[in-house]
Amino acid sequence: SIVAVVNSFFKRLYERSQLPLSGKKVVVTAGGTVERIDPVRYISNDSSGKMGFALAKAAHELGADVTLLAANTHLPLPAGIRVVHLESAQEMYDAVLAEWSVTDILVKAAAVADYRAKEVSDRKIKKSGETLTLELVKNIDILESLGKQKTKQLLIGFAAETNDLEKYAMDKLQRKNCDLLIANDVTREGAGFGTDTNLVNIYDTTGLIESLPLLSKEELGMRIMELAAARLPGAQE
Amino acid sequence: SIVAVVNSFFKRLYERSQLPLSGKKVVVTAGGTVERIDPVRYISNDSSGKMGFALAKAAHELGADVTLLAANTHLPLPAGIRVVHLESAQEMYDAVLAEWSVTDILVKAAAVADYRAKEVSDRKIKKSGETLTLELVKNIDILESLGKQKTKQLLIGFAAETNDLEKYAMDKLQRKNCDLLIANDVTREGAGFGTDTNLVNIYDTTGLIESLPLLSKEELGMRIMELAAARLPGAQE
Repeated sequence: SIVAVVNSFFKRLYERSQLPLSGKKVVVTAGGTVERIDPVRYISNDSSGKMGFALAKAAHELGADVTLLAANTHLPLPAGIRVVHLESAQEMYDAVLAEWSVTDILVKAAAVADYRAKEVSDRKIKKSGETLTLELVKNIDILESLGKQKTKQLLIGFAAETNDLEKYAMDKLQRKNCDLLIANDVTREGAGFGTDTNLVNIYDTTGLIESLPLLSKEELGMRIMELAAARLPGAQE
Repeated sequence: SIVAVVNSFFKRLYERSQLPLSGKKVVVTAGGTVERIDPVRYISNDSSGKMGFALAKAAHELGADVTLLAANTHLPLPAGIRVVHLESAQEMYDAVLAEWSVTDILVKAAAVADYRAKEVSDRKIKKSGETLTLELVKNIDILESLGKQKTKQLLIGFAAETNDLEKYAMDKLQRKNCDLLIANDVTREGAGFGTDTNLVNIYDTTGLIESLPLLSKEELGMRIMELAAARLPGAQE
């Protein structure tokens, strides 16, 4: 009957309003930024976007209003999540800032290029000499910039390292004013780019808080969003 | 009955033996090569591999034994075709050469990087100065090298240009000793990288032979393979 349908709708609405991230805005960045060299060539990295997509799905399951900012991903789009496709670090920064004032949790899972080409050719560069020198300039550091602008936002960063994991992770967390830092050694089996699993340590300002076993990116996404939810102002202990 | 199944099998085998490319070996390269900068970063280009995959499917439909050499593609794998995944220009060259002596038609649809990083770091390069200079060195020119080693092989190249299409196309065809050169202006709507359609001119050593309308990459793949089949030694006019 129509009454049962309406009741069921409001029941689901009520249940969703009771979830750990109900009424919260979560922004997740995913994938690897693309920095153009010319109209057909670019510099990018191996980030597949799987970790960011898993985080966005977990945040949605926990009741949040989620925006996923995706660069160079080739994954099926998750249901119920607003996805914005973009390319460069600058576009990523602009998109994050556009949502910043209403963001409760920002998870920067994207691998954002540290450098971009100093000059982007508007024509395909023709092959010429035996060598070519590409001048790169530093991109804005999105996480560092957000760390300085933080008011209520919980800021979660990632560190993909090939050596000296803890040293780089704690250094990054402090320099960038993150609340949580998820660090993985991408040289370890099952960790890092393109895989369906991840093997991470999680740090907060006090140091290592979790050293997780090999988990699927879905399981890890849920664990991270649960940790984040528990750290929001007013969260029940 | 078993007799009917066996008859049907031999009928299909016979029919396949009568196709325009029956008994012919076709090698198609597809996608955009990936040139490493360090374990997580690379230089690549916008080639999606769609044109190469369509060419491989067309060659298979015309009866050929097909090998598809794919770099940085995210497409569903076509049935009945041997696919080899690889990354760099050097790996592409090695893979093409491994099949060269038995190849009848080589279609180089992949966008192969002209340059690679002079030094590939075995550790992730840490961000440091405001600028970074990337020294690149020229890759081997696969098409030119094959053009010099041609015996029986029909060599088909592509040119993706943003300006002066015919000039660059004829120049490339002659310098690289191609039999057919498929040229598109990637700035035109519906042409080029990532699209499902393409808009090309086809050249041989005498000049322009076909100026095709906007076609799906499947239609264009079939047209190119038909043109190629007609140019093989012993092809019926």
